[in-house]
Amino acid sequence: MALNKNPYKGTRDFFPQDMRLRNFIFGKMAEVSQLYSYEAYDGPLLEEVDLYLAKSGEELISEQIYSFTDRGDRLVAIRPEMTPTVARMVAQIHRETIKPLRWYSTPNLMRYEKMQKGRLREFWQYNADIFGAPDNLGEVEMIQLAVDIIRSFGGTSEMFEILLNDRRFVDFVFKSVIGIEEAMATKLYKLVDKKAKMPEEKFKAEVLTTVGDEKKAALFNEYLLLQNIQDVITYVEKNNDSSEAIAPLVSFFNLIETLGLNEYVKFDPTIVRGLDYYTGIVFEIFDKHPENRRAIAGGGAFANLLQIFNEQPLAGVGFGLGDVTFTDFLKTHNLLPDLSRPEVEVLISYMDSSIENASFKLAAKLRQKGIKTELYLGEVKPKKIFGYAEKRGHQFAVILGADELVKNEIQFKNLITREIHTIALSDVDGMSQIVKGN
Amino acid sequence: MALNKNPYKGTRDFFPQDMRLRNFIFGKMAEVSQLYSYEAYDGPLLEEVDLYLAKSGEELISEQIYSFTDRGDRLVAIRPEMTPTVARMVAQIHRETIKPLRWYSTPNLMRYEKMQKGRLREFWQYNADIFGAPDNLGEVEMIQLAVDIIRSFGGTSEMFEILLNDRRFVDFVFKSVIGIEEAMATKLYKLVDKKAKMPEEKFKAEVLTTVGDEKKAALFNEYLLLQNIQDVITYVEKNNDSSEAIAPLVSFFNLIETLGLNEYVKFDPTIVRGLDYYTGIVFEIFDKHPENRRAIAGGGAFANLLQIFNEQPLAGVGFGLGDVTFTDFLKTHNLLPDLSRPEVEVLISYMDSSIENASFKLAAKLRQKGIKTELYLGEVKPKKIFGYAEKRGHQFAVILGADELVKNEIQFKNLITREIHTIALSDVDGMSQIVKGN
Repeated sequence: MALNKNPYKGTRDFFPQDMRLRNFIFGKMAEVSQLYSYEAYDGPLLEEVDLYLAKSGEELISEQIYSFTDRGDRLVAIRPEMTPTVARMVAQIHRETIKPLRWYSTPNLMRYEKMQKGRLREFWQYNADIFGAPDNLGEVEMIQLAVDIIRSFGGTSEMFEILLNDRRFVDFVFKSVIGIEEAMATKLYKLVDKKAKMPEEKFKAEVLTTVGDEKKAALFNEYLLLQNIQDVITYVEKNNDSSEAIAPLVSFFNLIETLGLNEYVKFDPTIVRGLDYYTGIVFEIFDKHPENRRAIAGGGAFANLLQIFNEQPLAGVGFGLGDVTFTDFLKTHNLLPDLSRPEVEVLISYMDSSIENASFKLAAKLRQKGIKTELYLGEVKPKKIFGYAEKRGHQFAVILGADELVKNEIQFKNLITREIHTIALSDVDGMSQIVKGN
Repeated sequence: MALNKNPYKGTRDFFPQDMRLRNFIFGKMAEVSQLYSYEAYDGPLLEEVDLYLAKSGEELISEQIYSFTDRGDRLVAIRPEMTPTVARMVAQIHRETIKPLRWYSTPNLMRYEKMQKGRLREFWQYNADIFGAPDNLGEVEMIQLAVDIIRSFGGTSEMFEILLNDRRFVDFVFKSVIGIEEAMATKLYKLVDKKAKMPEEKFKAEVLTTVGDEKKAALFNEYLLLQNIQDVITYVEKNNDSSEAIAPLVSFFNLIETLGLNEYVKFDPTIVRGLDYYTGIVFEIFDKHPENRRAIAGGGAFANLLQIFNEQPLAGVGFGLGDVTFTDFLKTHNLLPDLSRPEVEVLISYMDSSIENASFKLAAKLRQKGIKTELYLGEVKPKKIFGYAEKRGHQFAVILGADELVKNEIQFKNLITREIHTIALSDVDGMSQIVKGN
């Protein structure tokens, strides 16, 4: 029986054109990260499952992880997210390393997802993290970086927005304003995280069950109506509570405004993030287009990520942005360049095999000059070669014949301008100037 | 109990310095590949195990593969090599795509190896393949590409050599000269592949057992003494056989010589390659240094890789080069540049938090000019900042104070030349010129 030619369910083959897109996306992200002095890192494909048990969300572990027992009887998993890995790495070195650490990565991750638009089982994710920055400043820088990354693709505040909340404020609301216990607060977090996916009625009913009485439910519903930082301040004042709980959020929004980032950032009470490790500001980046209204990135601040390694706390902020949803965003807003053809500069071809050697040599010399050169292997008729060169996206084509070799003179044809440069076969510098001057 | 901070056995954490090395290695390889008009591709992390059963070597499947059953009851494996994946991908599209296909990739692969120098369980491997090239020309181009890749790191013919053979010639020797059956020939292949790892006596004894008699063993031992293409020709003539079996190899060596590549390429009868899919020229690239005498890359030609997908044959040639052994090669020959510090151009810092906003803004403006800029978060004393900047590898440092802001004038300090440029805070173009002119 013939083997299946398709990739494994939920994964993709990246043919050259797909790969150009992936490299375009992560290349730009790497570029912007480096402008922010972030350094590239990577971790292993597999981690011991214990690492995820300790900190990731429950659903991720029980339903979505690719785990198995290795030949040495260790329970391991293909990484479903990068934060536990980066925490493990930072735990190794943070004591003797100058801080803050600013790191980014672009790993492939796997999750056993139900397939739907924007979701695949293997995906690539840009991750950025800063560890050991002073309060709020790491958070602000992370928002700046995220905005600049999306802007570098042509994204504008009409196309995306960052919805943001603060888990310290949510904790305060749940415990001090509404007055519910820790265990209930955890349930309420999970409920809010799923709000967008539930019918309104069902959500309200579950809230009531969770908080216990109508009065508490009303306080909670009031919280859900907060639309900006001014609403937050008023809500806290009205409930006669100290403003300490919202001091970081207020100062964060002040800085965001001074930096002109407020057109991108919006307070949203429903953003709490499902993963257990967040402790401060949390955010999600949303596509604003009505036909692709969904989160394309998410992140936040975590204070205690190193605790599971018995290390002192080290404040961190990070976010992740996956290739599948981000590509949907770029497509939705027509932000993708034409990547249909490879970037190859010169095509060398020869009419008969007696000049094969000379053709190989010419190609080698052009490459030494840094010119992307394809050698058409095997003898070929001129008629065929121009069609081939255009399909492949070459800018220049050279056809070597025995006559040209005798005369030591070749014709360098610009396929875009149709101009023909006659040049000595030995004048590789001249050819290089023609190509690079193009 | 505290969690383990170390990476899973046989894998590595790539801290920024390690990642700079990995990016340096694969960045250069990608560059040279593109000069040869090769296009980047990638495949999934997981493949169904059937794909490997069909074509990979036995040892790879039974002992080295990371396989498991997924939640949908499919038997899958983390890719241990890239060739089956690329064959699967080519099988999908080769009929409607112009050929040859020239592709390269740099995937992470996993094999359950016994740990030793140059071997880890997770490694990255550069792969290049050409599909659909005329006889011998794809092979020559592949050797050229491999040589140019290693030369691009400063490698010379004193440092590495390509040992090469032709499975068509080996088949001919086994079947027509020595006269053994198919099954025995397969055994002999495996034996030759392991020769370097066996004591001479044991090898000879096993050869005798395999071929059956002394006369055949003598013919085989004679084969093992062949040192160059002239020896091969003489051996074939002496055994009164037609020279057809070696015609491709002879013409291959002719072209290699004309292209000046013969200083890198040497015929070696012990090179047969363990993997089952090779059918023509096979080669391994060896480090010549006596302290690191080992293969750093291997490859060859395969005619029937698409057969398992019920597709017409399509000739292919490829090779793979792993990061672990290649890094050993570069280290052994002192070919590694200094990658100890990140490339960050400017450090902006501020003495008190009243000018935090102005500092964030200046950093943002420099980044817009394409300058890699780190903002030191939080107020800091000038004394501390210069030491920090030097440790991090900055070329320029700026310390903002309230006075500077009032005067609209800042000092841009070159940390290498110790030169100080006084410049208007608003003159970002001027700053850009100072940095880029450096």
